[in-house]
Amino acid sequence: MELLTTCYLFLGLSESQLDRLAAITTETRIQKGKWLFFEGEEAEELYVLKEGAVELMTKVDDDFELPIAMLRDPGSCFGTSALTAPHVYSLSARCAEQGSLLVIERMELEKLMREDRELGYIIMTNWASHLLNRLKETRQELKVHFKTLFKFMHS
Amino acid sequence: MELLTTCYLFLGLSESQLDRLAAITTETRIQKGKWLFFEGEEAEELYVLKEGAVELMTKVDDDFELPIAMLRDPGSCFGTSALTAPHVYSLSARCAEQGSLLVIERMELEKLMREDRELGYIIMTNWASHLLNRLKETRQELKVHFKTLFKFMHS
Repeated sequence: MELLTTCYLFLGLSESQLDRLAAITTETRIQKGKWLFFEGEEAEELYVLKEGAVELMTKVDDDFELPIAMLRDPGSCFGTSALTAPHVYSLSARCAEQGSLLVIERMELEKLMREDRELGYIIMTNWASHLLNRLKETRQELKVHFKTLFKFMHS
Repeated sequence: MELLTTCYLFLGLSESQLDRLAAITTETRIQKGKWLFFEGEEAEELYVLKEGAVELMTKVDDDFELPIAMLRDPGSCFGTSALTAPHVYSLSARCAEQGSLLVIERMELEKLMREDRELGYIIMTNWASHLLNRLKETRQELKVHFKTLFKFMHS
């Protein structure tokens, strides 16, 4: 389960912490086109990409999905809404290229984090840092849209 | 320091954890119009609003600041970029109405979190939940802008 060490969530965990994490991790194959979960669904699992590609998107209208990210790098994780209440996926995920995933059950991970607060602290700190970066990037996109919109309004 | 218990970051801390937090908290008065920090500056302090109002904003252009939030509720916190590396403020903050703030030094807080991993785990979990919500809200704004832009392009 060396792949776990390449996921940003688990950076800084000790060997024995990674071993315990690996013990609650399973692997599954995914087929192209398969939806892994939909925005708004209960988030019961966290995923780490092992092979293939996964597309994350959010619905704007019934006929328009806004692409958020295309994950291709092994070790990329998604479904992180499982890490915190209310445990609801904020995006939809679809397999874009067949491959395989590591799957971590939310309840199992919560148990690990309860038993080892340091492990929980490290994972949550890594996640918060990642979310802060995503928030900055999304604000940046919003700024670009503001500028574009102003151009249209004043042209 | 009852105010600390109303800040989302510190929900779930025990009495003794809150006491230790209060021991590293100081109070300062703020005057209307005063800039508390600028986007891009090193984040050495975390703030909790006690009285007055604070405006958060981000720079789009030299002559245009995009407003992000107006904090008025006592217990609102900001400057949370101090909680994680690289410790750089992602927004600017200006006092919109005179009042007072609680100030927590980053180094002192890090020491507390190192000494008590449970305290660190609780604060980081609360922060990650908050960031996830802000990210969802910001994506929502982005969706609205997409729609508006399409209307302009097709009108």
